[in-house]
Amino acid sequence: MTGADRLAAQFAFLNEADRLKSVLRATTLCDGSRRENSGEHSWHLALYAMVLADQAPEGVQIGRVIRMLLIHDLVEIDVGDVPIHSANGAAHASADTVAAEQRAAERIFGLLPPDQAADFRALWDEFEAAATPDAVFAKALDRVQPVMANLQSGGGTWVTYDVTYDQLQTRVGAKVARGAPAIWDWVRERAAAWFAGRGPAA
Amino acid sequence: MTGADRLAAQFAFLNEADRLKSVLRATTLCDGSRRENSGEHSWHLALYAMVLADQAPEGVQIGRVIRMLLIHDLVEIDVGDVPIHSANGAAHASADTVAAEQRAAERIFGLLPPDQAADFRALWDEFEAAATPDAVFAKALDRVQPVMANLQSGGGTWVTYDVTYDQLQTRVGAKVARGAPAIWDWVRERAAAWFAGRGPAA
Repeated sequence: MTGADRLAAQFAFLNEADRLKSVLRATTLCDGSRRENSGEHSWHLALYAMVLADQAPEGVQIGRVIRMLLIHDLVEIDVGDVPIHSANGAAHASADTVAAEQRAAERIFGLLPPDQAADFRALWDEFEAAATPDAVFAKALDRVQPVMANLQSGGGTWVTYDVTYDQLQTRVGAKVARGAPAIWDWVRERAAAWFAGRGPAA
Repeated sequence: MTGADRLAAQFAFLNEADRLKSVLRATTLCDGSRRENSGEHSWHLALYAMVLADQAPEGVQIGRVIRMLLIHDLVEIDVGDVPIHSANGAAHASADTVAAEQRAAERIFGLLPPDQAADFRALWDEFEAAATPDAVFAKALDRVQPVMANLQSGGGTWVTYDVTYDQLQTRVGAKVARGAPAIWDWVRERAAAWFAGRGPAA
C-alpha cells in the first residue's frame, strides 16, 4: 500500500465516520433542547474519561479508554442506537443486534488500511466484551453520562420511558458500580433524590 | 478537598462542557444537511488524530494530541466560533478575541479541582501557542477537517464566503503543511481540483 493509498483509506474511514453525527440517541442535551447525537456523545464520554481518570481502578490505562470511547459507537452508523430504557432495550444484547453490529464493524473498520482495521476492530471487540479493566471502566462512563443528562434536563429518558428507581439500579447502576464504584455512590445519591421527589409513577 | 467535593467539581465541569454541543460552526456535516457543532467537531478531530497518527512527525505524542483536541474548543462556550473564512476571520487572533478566550478558559477550566484546572489550562495554552510539535500537529488536523467536509459537501464554506484557492493556501494550507506535510500534499491536490472545476469566482 503506497502512502497515497494509505491516506485515501484513512480519509475514506474519517469521511464515513462523519455520519455518526446524524445518529440520534434517546437522551437529550443537558438543557433538554434537543436529542443528543452519537458523535457529540462520544466526545463527551472521552472528556469524561480524561476528567474522571483519578476515579478509575488501579491499572486502567486512560489513554486506551479514551480511544475505546472515541470508536465505541461507530457501528451505530449502520445499526442505529437502541435506547437502554426503551421497549426494545432488551434487544440491546439480542443475537440479531450483535450480528448486525459485527457486520457493521467489519464494514466500517474495514475502510481503514489493514493494520489499522485490525487494531481498531480489536479495541472495539474489547469494549463490547467488557472483560478487561479498561473496557469495564469505559462501559461505566457510557452508562453514567446519560444519568447526568437526565438529572440536568428534569428527568429526560426516565420520564419518556417511565423508568423506576429499581430499573435504573438494574440497567445502569450495576454496570457503573462495577467499573467506577465511587462515581456510582455519588451519582446514585442524586438520582435517588430525583426519583424520591417524583413520587410514585403515575 | 474531600472525594465528594472533587467529584462535585468534576461533574460541574462535565455538565458545563455539554454546552459545547450547542455552539455552531460555519462548516456543515459532510452530507451538507446542517451546520456542525463544536462538540461533534472535537470528537471527529480526536478520531483524526487516532487514525492519522502515522502521519505525525517523529516525537509527536498522539495521546497528548487527542487530549488537546478534546478540550481545544471549550472556550467557545463563552466566546463562540469565529469562522476562518468569514469577514471577521481576521479577528481570530485579535487582542479582544484572545482576551475573551483567556477569560473563558479561566472560568471553564476553573470549575475543575485545582490540580486538574491547572493541567487542562496548561494543555489548552500549549495548543493556543502552537509552538510544540504536539500542538502544531493538533492545529494542522483542526485546519484540515473542514477542508474534507467542504470537499464532501460540494464546497461548503468556500462557497458561503467565496473563498479563492490562494486564500485557502494562506489561511489553511500553510498551517496544515507545517504540521503534517504529507497530509497537505494529498488534500491540496483534491482541493485544487475542486477550485479548478469551479472556474473563476463570479
